[in-house]
Amino acid sequence: MTNLQQSTHPVSVNILNNGSEIKLQWPDRASRYHAVWLRDNGQDQNTRNPANHQKLITIADIPEGVFVEHAIITDQNRLELGFGPDQWTTSIDIEWLYAHSYEDSYQERANTMFADNITTWNSGFVKNITRSNYDDVRTSPEALLEWLRAVDRYGVAILLGLPDKNAAVLDVIDLFGYIRETNYGQYFEIRSEINPINLAYTSIGLQSHTDNPYRDPVPGLQLFGCLENNTEGGESIVVDGFRIAETIRQENPRWFELLCTYNAQFEYCGSTGTHLQASRPMIECGPDGKIIHIRFNNRSCAALTEIPYDHMEEYYRAYRRFGDLANSNQLEVIFKLQPGQLFITDNTRVLHGRTGFSGPGNRWMQGAYADKDALKSKIRVLEQSLNLGIDANQVVKIY
Amino acid sequence: MTNLQQSTHPVSVNILNNGSEIKLQWPDRASRYHAVWLRDNGQDQNTRNPANHQKLITIADIPEGVFVEHAIITDQNRLELGFGPDQWTTSIDIEWLYAHSYEDSYQERANTMFADNITTWNSGFVKNITRSNYDDVRTSPEALLEWLRAVDRYGVAILLGLPDKNAAVLDVIDLFGYIRETNYGQYFEIRSEINPINLAYTSIGLQSHTDNPYRDPVPGLQLFGCLENNTEGGESIVVDGFRIAETIRQENPRWFELLCTYNAQFEYCGSTGTHLQASRPMIECGPDGKIIHIRFNNRSCAALTEIPYDHMEEYYRAYRRFGDLANSNQLEVIFKLQPGQLFITDNTRVLHGRTGFSGPGNRWMQGAYADKDALKSKIRVLEQSLNLGIDANQVVKIY
Repeated sequence: MTNLQQSTHPVSVNILNNGSEIKLQWPDRASRYHAVWLRDNGQDQNTRNPANHQKLITIADIPEGVFVEHAIITDQNRLELGFGPDQWTTSIDIEWLYAHSYEDSYQERANTMFADNITTWNSGFVKNITRSNYDDVRTSPEALLEWLRAVDRYGVAILLGLPDKNAAVLDVIDLFGYIRETNYGQYFEIRSEINPINLAYTSIGLQSHTDNPYRDPVPGLQLFGCLENNTEGGESIVVDGFRIAETIRQENPRWFELLCTYNAQFEYCGSTGTHLQASRPMIECGPDGKIIHIRFNNRSCAALTEIPYDHMEEYYRAYRRFGDLANSNQLEVIFKLQPGQLFITDNTRVLHGRTGFSGPGNRWMQGAYADKDALKSKIRVLEQSLNLGIDANQVVKIY
Repeated sequence: MTNLQQSTHPVSVNILNNGSEIKLQWPDRASRYHAVWLRDNGQDQNTRNPANHQKLITIADIPEGVFVEHAIITDQNRLELGFGPDQWTTSIDIEWLYAHSYEDSYQERANTMFADNITTWNSGFVKNITRSNYDDVRTSPEALLEWLRAVDRYGVAILLGLPDKNAAVLDVIDLFGYIRETNYGQYFEIRSEINPINLAYTSIGLQSHTDNPYRDPVPGLQLFGCLENNTEGGESIVVDGFRIAETIRQENPRWFELLCTYNAQFEYCGSTGTHLQASRPMIECGPDGKIIHIRFNNRSCAALTEIPYDHMEEYYRAYRRFGDLANSNQLEVIFKLQPGQLFITDNTRVLHGRTGFSGPGNRWMQGAYADKDALKSKIRVLEQSLNLGIDANQVVKIY
């Protein structure tokens, strides 16, 4: 299913450096590819299983010193390749090669702080949070896709009109993924208790935080469904932790570096039979420098012991600045959930909190965790099934 | 419950630098602590909830410029502290301060490649794999602790005598944690199929690999229970990925750096309704340089597009060396599971594979995923309940 309307035929192919590279000249650019890379990405049934797309060869099946002997562009819009020293042949779809050109992709990505799917926000975002209806996302793939894309891009979204039933939050997870069960259960009750195993189960305000930094891996998504909320207070707060990190990096690169470079220590031992600990940075970057994970939770902070003595005071200054931003009116988005309403956060990015509550009424929320990979998978699958064309070139197709 | 027999009384306490630090002189060493750190780690009921141990203050509750006004060692083995500028008082257990001395801890850890709980191994380990009996670990906390500690330290262990029932693998997860459900189900059947959605569900040999690098987060534990295995071949293979990484770092630091520094691309789209992608390094280090996660899976490798053009060929050389070590007799541990036997791997570290199988018999395994945090929590809880004294100083206790 090549999208011929998008076809970008190369003008020519040249073999360079004794076959260790080739160059494809396109109308709008030139791209080089290494012989070993082309061999590894051959689109033939000896290289990949045509049905499940899994790769059949290992790196050891590619001879050392592999080189391109011949390269021809066919009128089926494919690049036919012959390799030495072992006379291996394959072909690769030209569209796919254009989409997977890597000659400049690392440098093009080098100056961005986040992956492409991320847009950060501040308190003004309260007007723009995606608020979808449960019945719509349940019955319409388009509506579900829109809601999931909002979670992916902004790290938060609201759902209205949940069924009036226990654990409706789990029905929402069923729309895209799988429950991450923990010591708190498949889902958990968030309401004021006499002997709470977690301060979330009280009426006190909670500073905006990410959940479970003492867990590794941290649950990537958290859902909060509201069953009752007629107290005074009890508003929900969300803050974009990626915006906090971005702000600190702009204001004080040294503070940003401290929060990235050293592991903070987190711990939970609030209930019998559970003693969780993790040692991970408050701002985690991937090896390419992209910010990928925020961990911030005052209740779960253990003693910091993995920071050099001479950096500890400065680390605390950076940590204080993070806390100030987490509490700031400029970044907080505040709303009060009503029964039958739910919000979801990307728990590796968006902090959530609540104002304290009191008075004669009740506040009763149910929470549950899930993971982001299934949500992102669902987005790709919906995009493909709705023929939105996005990711059309992501899958290796064998013709 | 201070362990008085381990008590190490400080000789003296001195306030330094106008109260921004103190120094405790112990019989065997001196340790400095910052005022802000002491304030953050106060052991009083305004700082931490005495019941669930969660911290009650946020960083904003500590005044900027906090300093120690007075510091006294009491005969209850506590350090009493008064802070300015706001006249705050607290006390901290002396044992706890000794155990959490951080003045030199970062430097002391700096030269190790792994966390303390890790011991790497090669093919000789086949004699030493912990093989426990299911009924023992199910009924004896000591036996369970021994088995879980083996998983934690070596990343692999075997269990014998599983009940002859469907999905017994899930009963084993129940001993320490929670099922990580995925698109493959709560558990999955590994046997030869006609139209496999994954090449694991065939009779071909599988190069040693970690599972699901296309998932984020990757499941931290994988369990394989054997129901039938009377074919020719079908042996299980495990390889310590941490030993592979260690070896590459010793042989060729540049190759190690390449595999750490650049994200590899992984993908799975072998079944309808699932399209998983992740971009993470084959060797992941924490910010402190410790090796924490191995991802290696030829079947799931997508086209590598996030590596600078000029480093691609050298990256492939490093990747090839990783593959050679994954296949090497020096590192492979090989065993053939019998019905009623199971092995578990730390899927962030230990590669697993199998030899191909054929002949008249059947090979039928059931697999499932779980996470490591609950396993590590269970180890701490068992150690504490068995009074093994380990981690006795980890929890902040309020007296």
